[in-house]
Amino acid sequence: MSRAVFDTAEYDRRLDRTKARLREENLDAIVVADPANMNYLTGYDGWSFYVHQAVIVTADRDEPIWVGREMDADGARATTILSADSIQSYSDDHVHSPYDLHPMDYVAGVLDELDVGDGRIGLEMDAYYFTAKSYTRLQENLPKAEFSDATLLVNWVRVKKSEQELAYMREAARISENAMRAGIDAIEEGVPEYEAAAAIYDALITGTDEFGGDYPSIVPLMPSGDHTGTPHLTWTDRPFEDGDPVIIELSGCRHRYHSPLARTTFVGDPPAELERTADIVTEGIEAALAAAEPGVTCEAVEKAWRETIAQYDIEKEDRIGYSMGLGYPPDWGEHTASIRPGDETVLEEDMTFHMIPGIWTEEIGMETSETFRVTSSGAETLADFPRQLFTA
Amino acid sequence: MSRAVFDTAEYDRRLDRTKARLREENLDAIVVADPANMNYLTGYDGWSFYVHQAVIVTADRDEPIWVGREMDADGARATTILSADSIQSYSDDHVHSPYDLHPMDYVAGVLDELDVGDGRIGLEMDAYYFTAKSYTRLQENLPKAEFSDATLLVNWVRVKKSEQELAYMREAARISENAMRAGIDAIEEGVPEYEAAAAIYDALITGTDEFGGDYPSIVPLMPSGDHTGTPHLTWTDRPFEDGDPVIIELSGCRHRYHSPLARTTFVGDPPAELERTADIVTEGIEAALAAAEPGVTCEAVEKAWRETIAQYDIEKEDRIGYSMGLGYPPDWGEHTASIRPGDETVLEEDMTFHMIPGIWTEEIGMETSETFRVTSSGAETLADFPRQLFTA
Repeated sequence: MSRAVFDTAEYDRRLDRTKARLREENLDAIVVADPANMNYLTGYDGWSFYVHQAVIVTADRDEPIWVGREMDADGARATTILSADSIQSYSDDHVHSPYDLHPMDYVAGVLDELDVGDGRIGLEMDAYYFTAKSYTRLQENLPKAEFSDATLLVNWVRVKKSEQELAYMREAARISENAMRAGIDAIEEGVPEYEAAAAIYDALITGTDEFGGDYPSIVPLMPSGDHTGTPHLTWTDRPFEDGDPVIIELSGCRHRYHSPLARTTFVGDPPAELERTADIVTEGIEAALAAAEPGVTCEAVEKAWRETIAQYDIEKEDRIGYSMGLGYPPDWGEHTASIRPGDETVLEEDMTFHMIPGIWTEEIGMETSETFRVTSSGAETLADFPRQLFTA
Repeated sequence: MSRAVFDTAEYDRRLDRTKARLREENLDAIVVADPANMNYLTGYDGWSFYVHQAVIVTADRDEPIWVGREMDADGARATTILSADSIQSYSDDHVHSPYDLHPMDYVAGVLDELDVGDGRIGLEMDAYYFTAKSYTRLQENLPKAEFSDATLLVNWVRVKKSEQELAYMREAARISENAMRAGIDAIEEGVPEYEAAAAIYDALITGTDEFGGDYPSIVPLMPSGDHTGTPHLTWTDRPFEDGDPVIIELSGCRHRYHSPLARTTFVGDPPAELERTADIVTEGIEAALAAAEPGVTCEAVEKAWRETIAQYDIEKEDRIGYSMGLGYPPDWGEHTASIRPGDETVLEEDMTFHMIPGIWTEEIGMETSETFRVTSSGAETLADFPRQLFTA
């Protein structure tokens, strides 16, 4: 009994679009190793990406094939829409093997059985979990194959969201609001950072009164004090101190769909400079959101931000956002369109982005973010949370 | 001001052992991409492994070199023991780049500057996050280099733990005990799975009265009901039902060191068969723990388990444990020694393993696990938690 979270028609549409891309690239097959892409094409959901696994799509076959560890095949049966003969698994002696066995040896065998072992095969060369060894083992096993880099092929298919995907992202946004409130409430002078992290986690997993939360692809990040310029450090035992700025970045997650949100809070009375910076960030993000609509490029959206903050003599030329939605650790980003100078991706309705601009001075950092959907005529933010500097 | 969690002498010892291995393998350098190995050699700790990064160790240089994203260089300064000129970073246009730039282009440049660009370079070919593209870009940039697979070189250096590492693992064990208690207490008929997950997370991060918890490398796993045979599915909105067996596998984490623990609980009155199975699992794990001591092989430890359960006509030939400690998502395992048939690794004092045997019948699954240290004469379990079937 499958617990897949989309109906079969939606998976069919995803597969059709992927096959169309295979034809455009003149590929006979693609080996999909990115867990988010594997989920997208089949529904597969499990914490099994610490071993090699893949979904294979061929130009001809009706269904994708899931290939993974024997112990995870039941999980594939439980979570995917695939029929029994589309789930194939390798024995446990392939895992961290002392016998010179590698899961990709088995994957190569499946490609051979599918009659594409000597064909043109797309590989996600730069996807998480598709290691250098995965590549060389496929090469060794399939000397007649012609491999081609298809790293973002499925990611680009994911870029416009369906109604059901958007429904999950809106649920994730409800969770993000609750978790942000919990984090802001927990942070005060003398409270150790981990207690704020625990409060955020509790809200992320408890979710709302109607539904629970899934684990997010990135842990809650809370750079604080001197460390607001080090965005990816995680919490410690240090107590928050009077005078600490704290940037909270988190995301609720629902059926692996995210809706990230960032806000900045300050322990004690914020300096006037930080309040002024907060106002500039708010004005800038609102200008960028106002610029987003179908037909506009990603770089034009960034420009609206940059020109707004330039009025206050602040110069900053960075990526301020990226396309996102479905994800597994270590990232909820899709690695496709970025809101940054030089990215000429044209916005289309139902694309979704996390816009996270910030301003750092020598002493302090300030960030405010929104996850938004491109509508028919503008941008709709998924969360409803005040855009301001908070204080504790 | 570094917040590195080991003293410099300990990092020096780790580096010396790694360099000795380089000499044995006749390598001029190794490019370390596994986040756990990067942490081990430098102290680096941040949720930045969603972009490419590496630590380079050469046979000659006194310090390793950290190479990462510009935005993470401050994090490297904050968490490592490295001096300023051992931290090198690439610009943000290398990240998910539309400009055909790749972080490994920059890494290749660093290798060149270190005068090893035409040398023998070890690569962690099968490490998480070292993608196929990372490899081909290094090849393209360094056509004169001779690359060699050094996948587990540093992992094997990590296998025996220092006093300080063991102290962190014991702290992690205290957290595991609290989280397991919280999970068992939370599970009852009608409670949704996510509420139990939230209770576990709260305990994992809140830690103990003396210290907080870090995020574990694997989320709490709670296969339940019909799904105890699908070990890697994560929680859902489903309420626990009378008659559900629930396997809880979790780990506290302290400065990235883990001490995993698994127990099984049952919602309602457990069937006699499950109680009998629980007794067999307990007898089996105790026999395996009794067999572990310096000089004994991993496969001999597994055999003690297998022969014990064979007395009850249960046949099962699986990996029942693995070396572990330091880790980042997606895994806390070291991928070195496994407690399974055929693994002839000889136990030495201060190796640490997670032993997680289980028995599944058609209807039910039962697991009990312990993290243990090999002592001078036996095995010491790090957590103190009853080995029994629990009921809710």
